Amino acid sequence: REERITMSHGAGGKATQTLIEAVFLDAFRNPLLEPLEDAALFSVAGPRVALTTDSYVVSPLFFPGGNIGDLAVNGTVNDLSVSGATPLYLTAGFILEEGFPVADLTRVVSSMQEAAVAAGVSIVTGDTKVVQRGKADGCYINTAGVGVLLGDISLSVACAQPGDAIIVSGPIGDHGITIMLARGELDIEADIISDTAPLNGLVASLLAAVPGVRAMRDATRGGVATILNEIAKAADVGVLASEDDIPVRDEVRGASELLGIDPMYVACEGRLVAVVPGESAEAAVRAMRGHPLGAGAAVIGEVVADQPGIVRLKTAFGGTRIVDLLVGDPLPRIC
Amino acid sequence: REERITMSHGAGGKATQTLIEAVFLDAFRNPLLEPLEDAALFSVAGPRVALTTDSYVVSPLFFPGGNIGDLAVNGTVNDLSVSGATPLYLTAGFILEEGFPVADLTRVVSSMQEAAVAAGVSIVTGDTKVVQRGKADGCYINTAGVGVLLGDISLSVACAQPGDAIIVSGPIGDHGITIMLARGELDIEADIISDTAPLNGLVASLLAAVPGVRAMRDATRGGVATILNEIAKAADVGVLASEDDIPVRDEVRGASELLGIDPMYVACEGRLVAVVPGESAEAAVRAMRGHPLGAGAAVIGEVVADQPGIVRLKTAFGGTRIVDLLVGDPLPRIC
Ligand SMILES: Nc1ncnc2c1ncn2[C@@H]1O[C@H](COP(=O)(O)OP(=O)(O)OP(=O)(O)O)[C@@H](O)[C@H]1O
Ligand SMILES: Nc1ncnc2c1ncn2[C@@H]1O[C@H](COP(=O)(O)OP(=O)(O)OP(=O)(O)O)[C@@H](O)[C@H]1O
Ligand SMILES: [Mg+2]
Ligand SMILES: [Mg+2]
Ligand SMILES: [Mg+2]
Ligand SMILES: [Mg+2]
Ligand SMILES: [Mg+2]
Ligand SMILES: [Mg+2]
Repeated sequence: REERITMSHGAGGKATQTLIEAVFLDAFRNPLLEPLEDAALFSVAGPRVALTTDSYVVSPLFFPGGNIGDLAVNGTVNDLSVSGATPLYLTAGFILEEGFPVADLTRVVSSMQEAAVAAGVSIVTGDTKVVQRGKADGCYINTAGVGVLLGDISLSVACAQPGDAIIVSGPIGDHGITIMLARGELDIEADIISDTAPLNGLVASLLAAVPGVRAMRDATRGGVATILNEIAKAADVGVLASEDDIPVRDEVRGASELLGIDPMYVACEGRLVAVVPGESAEAAVRAMRGHPLGAGAAVIGEVVADQPGIVRLKTAFGGTRIVDLLVGDPLPRIC
Repeated sequence: REERITMSHGAGGKATQTLIEAVFLDAFRNPLLEPLEDAALFSVAGPRVALTTDSYVVSPLFFPGGNIGDLAVNGTVNDLSVSGATPLYLTAGFILEEGFPVADLTRVVSSMQEAAVAAGVSIVTGDTKVVQRGKADGCYINTAGVGVLLGDISLSVACAQPGDAIIVSGPIGDHGITIMLARGELDIEADIISDTAPLNGLVASLLAAVPGVRAMRDATRGGVATILNEIAKAADVGVLASEDDIPVRDEVRGASELLGIDPMYVACEGRLVAVVPGESAEAAVRAMRGHPLGAGAAVIGEVVADQPGIVRLKTAFGGTRIVDLLVGDPLPRIC
C-alpha cells in the first residue's frame, strides 16, 4: 500500500480500487455502499425528501476541534437539519492532490465516519479523483445529503412575521476564528476550538417543544449577519437585533478585533439561527438550552414591521447601526 | 458585474449572492432551486431511490463535443441510468479558481442547464466555493444525483451468469482520446469528438425490450476493460471477449497506438456495457440500435464458467490474452 496519493489513484484502475476498498469502504462500510455499484439504492419513508450539497476547501485541513472530514459531514447534516429534515444518507466526493499522504487521508476519512455515526447518517456512495501536485491543497471534499421530512412541517425565512423572536443556539464565530488562528497568521494564542457539530439533535428538541418554528438557518459563511439579512429580504420585514444579547466568546471578540472583522460575519459550523413566534421565544430557548449544543442559546433580536429589508443592530453604546451583507472576503477558505 | 471570479465570490456575502443569482439561478431556474434555501425539498414517487455522485476535474475545461458542465450532468445521469433509475434531481457543487473568467463559468453553466433539460433532470441545489489562484484549474464541479427506481428491477454485475452476452452500446474511447488530443500533447489531428451524452433514454429502450437485463455499467474511467473485470470479479465468472467485435473508431485506434494505450482502457462518457441473458442478446442489440445513442451497439463477448475472475480477449491474430485492471494513469484528468 502506497504512502502517498499518486495519479494512478484517480485513473479508475487497480490503484483506484485498492484505495476505495482499503481507505473509503473500510471506514464508511455499510450495506448500501458495500456493493460499490454506480449508485446506492434505498427507500425513504415519508412523503417529502430534502437534498443539499456543499463542497469543503478549508485550509488548513486539520484544526483545533475538527478537520475537513467531520466538517464535511456536519455541514451537510446541518443544511438538512435546519430544513426540517432528518438526515439519512450522504455522498462523499474527494478531489485529492497527488502526493497527499494516505495517512492524512485516512485520518480525514475516519473523522467523517465518526461524524456520520454521531449524526446517525450513512455515507452510501462516493467518488475519488486525483489532480496533479499543486492543483489542490491536499484534499477537497464534496458531500451531498438526503433527508426525509416527517409530517407536514413547513419552514422558510420568508415566513418571518413582525413580532417573531430571533434566537441563536450558542456563541458565534468560534469556527471561523479557530481557522484563522490555526493558520498562524495572527500572533495570538487563544483557547478556542471549532464549533463543528451535527445540529439534527438540537433541531429535533426545538421542533418538539415549539411546533410553530418559522425558519432555521445554520450560520456558516457570512455568519449570523448574513442570515438576518436573508430573513429581512425574504420576508420583507425589518430585523432589529441587539449587540449585547449576541453571545460571543471573549477570545472570538478579541481575535475579531485584531482581524478587523465584526463577529456577526464570522462563520460557525454548529450554530443555528431560529425564527419563532414571539410568544414561543422562551419555550424555544429553554428547549435549546436543554441540549448540549444549545446550552448558550439566546434571543438576539426580533422581527419588526418597519424598515423592511433592513437589519439594524442596537449597539453596546446605545446607538443603532445597519448591518448589511458582507463585502469582500475577510476570512477566506474557512469551510 | 465582475469579469473574473474573486475570493469574495466564495465568502458568502454580497458577491456570493450576486453570483448565485446572476449566473447559477439564472441558468438552472426551477421552483425547487428558486427559494435558495438550505436544501431542496421534493417528493419521490415509487419505493426505491438511487443516489450517486461524481466530481469532475477534466482538463481542458472545453473540448470538442462538450465541456466540464455537460460532462458533469451526463456523468451523474448515467450512473443513475445504469442503476435502473430514472434520474430526477441533481446537485451542483462548484470549486472555482480566483481569476476564472465569469464568461467561461457562464458557458459551463449554460451547458449544464442544456444537458439537464436534455436528460429531463433539474439542478435543485448547489454550492459555490472559491480557492486562490493556482489552487484549481478554473473550475471543478461535483454533481450528485437522485433517481427513482420504477418497479422491482434488480441489476448488479454480481448477477452475471455463464451464457450471458456482453454488449457495448457503441464505439469506445472517443471521450478519452478527444481529451488527450484537445491538450495538444499529441501531434495529430483527428476528426473526433467526445461521446458525452445522457444514457437514460437508451437504457429505457433497452429495459423495455429486454426485461431480464442483468447489469449495466457506464464505461467511464478505466474503460470497458475495467467493467469486464468488475463483472468477472463480482459474479465469480470468466469473461471472454473478442477484440474484433469491439467497436473502435479508426481515429481512436490510431491515437491509442501513438499513446501506447489499449482502447479497451480508454474512458467513454456516453457508452454503456450491458450483461443480458444469451437468448436476449439479439433483442438487446436491436433495441439499442433503435436509439440514436446505441446505433453502434454490438455483442463483444460472453460470460463463461471457466477461469472465474479472469477476463480473456480473443485477439485479432487468433490468440488469447488476459485483460487485467488498468495499472498507472495513462490518461490523467479525462473526467
Ligand atoms: N471516496 C469514496 N468514498 C466512498 N465510496 C467511494 C469513494 N470513491 C468511490 N466510491 C465508490 O466506489 C465505486 C466506484 O466508484 P467510481 O467513482 O470508480 O465509479 P464511477 O462513478 O462509476 O466511475 P467514474 O467516477 O469514472 O465515473 C462506487 O460504488 C462509489 O460509490
Ligand atoms: N453553484 C450553484 N448552483 C445552484 N445553486 C447554488 C449554487 N451555489 C449556491 N446555490 C444555492 O444558493 C443558496 C445558498 O447557497 P450557500 O452555499 O451559500 O448556502 P449554505 O450551504 O447554507 O452555506 P455554506 O455553503 O456556507 O454552508 C442555496 O439554496 C444553494 O442551493
Ligand atoms: Mg459508473
Ligand atoms: Mg451549507
Ligand atoms: Mg465516480
Ligand atoms: Mg446553510
Ligand atoms: Mg461515474
Ligand atoms: Mg453551500
